[in-house]
Amino acid sequence: MSEDHSAAPQTEGRGGGPTVFRGTALDRIVFFSDAVVAIAITLVVLPLVDGARDLEGRTAAQFVSDNGWQLAAAALTFVVVAVFWRTHHALFAHATGATSRAVSLNLLWLACIAFFPVPTVLLVDADGDDRVAHALYIGTMLVAVVTLVLESIELERHGLVPPDDGPPVARWTASIAFALAFVLSFAFPSWNAWPL
Amino acid sequence: MSEDHSAAPQTEGRGGGPTVFRGTALDRIVFFSDAVVAIAITLVVLPLVDGARDLEGRTAAQFVSDNGWQLAAAALTFVVVAVFWRTHHALFAHATGATSRAVSLNLLWLACIAFFPVPTVLLVDADGDDRVAHALYIGTMLVAVVTLVLESIELERHGLVPPDDGPPVARWTASIAFALAFVLSFAFPSWNAWPL
Amino acid sequence: MSEDHSAAPQTEGRGGGPTVFRGTALDRIVFFSDAVVAIAITLVVLPLVDGARDLEGRTAAQFVSDNGWQLAAAALTFVVVAVFWRTHHALFAHATGATSRAVSLNLLWLACIAFFPVPTVLLVDADGDDRVAHALYIGTMLVAVVTLVLESIELERHGLVPPDDGPPVARWTASIAFALAFVLSFAFPSWNAWPL
Amino acid sequence: MSEDHSAAPQTEGRGGGPTVFRGTALDRIVFFSDAVVAIAITLVVLPLVDGARDLEGRTAAQFVSDNGWQLAAAALTFVVVAVFWRTHHALFAHATGATSRAVSLNLLWLACIAFFPVPTVLLVDADGDDRVAHALYIGTMLVAVVTLVLESIELERHGLVPPDDGPPVARWTASIAFALAFVLSFAFPSWNAWPL
Repeated sequence: MSEDHSAAPQTEGRGGGPTVFRGTALDRIVFFSDAVVAIAITLVVLPLVDGARDLEGRTAAQFVSDNGWQLAAAALTFVVVAVFWRTHHALFAHATGATSRAVSLNLLWLACIAFFPVPTVLLVDADGDDRVAHALYIGTMLVAVVTLVLESIELERHGLVPPDDGPPVARWTASIAFALAFVLSFAFPSWNAWPL
Repeated sequence: MSEDHSAAPQTEGRGGGPTVFRGTALDRIVFFSDAVVAIAITLVVLPLVDGARDLEGRTAAQFVSDNGWQLAAAALTFVVVAVFWRTHHALFAHATGATSRAVSLNLLWLACIAFFPVPTVLLVDADGDDRVAHALYIGTMLVAVVTLVLESIELERHGLVPPDDGPPVARWTASIAFALAFVLSFAFPSWNAWPL
Repeated sequence: MSEDHSAAPQTEGRGGGPTVFRGTALDRIVFFSDAVVAIAITLVVLPLVDGARDLEGRTAAQFVSDNGWQLAAAALTFVVVAVFWRTHHALFAHATGATSRAVSLNLLWLACIAFFPVPTVLLVDADGDDRVAHALYIGTMLVAVVTLVLESIELERHGLVPPDDGPPVARWTASIAFALAFVLSFAFPSWNAWPL
Repeated sequence: MSEDHSAAPQTEGRGGGPTVFRGTALDRIVFFSDAVVAIAITLVVLPLVDGARDLEGRTAAQFVSDNGWQLAAAALTFVVVAVFWRTHHALFAHATGATSRAVSLNLLWLACIAFFPVPTVLLVDADGDDRVAHALYIGTMLVAVVTLVLESIELERHGLVPPDDGPPVARWTASIAFALAFVLSFAFPSWNAWPL
């Protein structure tokens, strides 16, 4: 699994440059990220399991209808986190190393992922025109997207991933779209955030 | 993100073919799956731990008898998820790479695994003739089986696993059996799903 | 699924012998085990966190004194599971492969580890002379020990770990000790199981 | 179990020295640690998710204001555990092996990490002058820091990490600072521990 084991095997300070984690030290960043993402994506089901243990004579159909929004929130969280994981996976499939700053950005990204179930549930439970719920949801996604883009730029700047083929502005598109949605959710709280 | 860059060590676009994840990028798909499965298989015990903290003067024997069905549901979930894990493990023990579509199918499979405790608990708690509970339980298993079969076909179609020796129809047998059980559980809700 | 295909890189059927998982397929068994053990060892603290959120004006000292047994149960579970993990780690540090039967035994061992918090909490909460609580606790440990010994024998029998230096009967010592404790806990329920 | 068998590929007893875990056996210690840390860092959000499911007509803004301290506690735990993980990651990025004693120290460190949410929540919930809450919080951090320093010394003493460049006393600075804070938190309970 680890590709290179030399004397000082898994880090290097290139000239006066920053420390770069490689080999198993890089794998560890990736696998730690996967563990956090896996837990975040799975925990969402736990309250539904607790609810299902407490049927009190209801039928399974009533349980599904009573918990429709909770089921939708769990599914939505799963899909969003899965999309983030795929992007992260695609980024690190190319990476040959990671700087200390990339690790910091990665931890901030993981904080967003771990926190994500909270704004999702708030969005589902609150009134449709609750602008704080909208802002929290879109804001968390926005921070996660920006963090991942910054991590990608950091890796590219140190030659640790191959440069993107497209124009640099392309990678900011998603962030800009989210920022716009963020502003709009304050301006028009009754606007439906679900398409996101 | 351009995943077919030639300098990338862990992906390749073969000719005009799809991106193929190899090496650590393949390992990561597998270990991420394991983390999700490990959490799903372990979380099932948590409500029992909560219950055991709340004995209120009951003996351990009374706790076991009061929670007999919950213990059975936990054991059943453990066995079913373990069987799915073994099948997944056997498939990827042969795999030399994974396409983007295989990753999508894998994420859908993981969603089924993570969701599985909910229909299991519903099946245990609901009345024996609750056809929605039966359908949810068998339906979740059916989607998980079909997803894994499709993932296996996708890998084989791109030469990423050795071809099966048996006739292709054999691999559909389990799916067909589950589909049949699915239909039957609607037709005859009093039919006992436990042998599954 | 034919697991003995000659083109498969990570399995092999030696002569007429059983399929042997090697390389990444072996790593995966180990890392999956680690994920389950890590979750089981960590989840034990969760109810204490819930309790600490519900102080209702009590001081931290009162919380600690009210939850003394729960804290002891969490610590005990951590220690016991950690000892099991070390034994498992030592066994697989030597292993060069795993048979299908070893995987089955490993899954049974993981079921014991995942279940272990339940009998621990029952032992702590029930009366000191609750023989079912004693039997459940010692029985779960007994099954876990026997399973790990059988897994060790299975690996050794196929030349996948180096043979033990000591006499074969030595490895059964712990199992026999536990079996004795199991019988005794039924005969003399007031006997204190804590030294275990 | 004899861990110094010469045929074992992933351990070695150097001369009369202790068993040293290398290769996959070393990786496993690291990945097991990551799994425990990942769970501890993620579980902290779970009670907030439960709370968010129980809005009872409150707005998202009210939820955030009602749970301000809980959100702060979750964020604080995330940051502290993330800092510990980075230190652990930096230590093992250099490590070429681990002794049995290092594994013991590592398990004690993991116990602190897993336990950490409990004193964090107590510190947030208890009165500002609750000296037991202060002592538990700082004490847990102190044990975690000392354990990690001892693990680092153990690895260095066996030549498994490159020697530190700075003077040996430097590594004790943090521990001494924490010890001081520990004593002070008893002496002046009204002193604010938050800067830590």
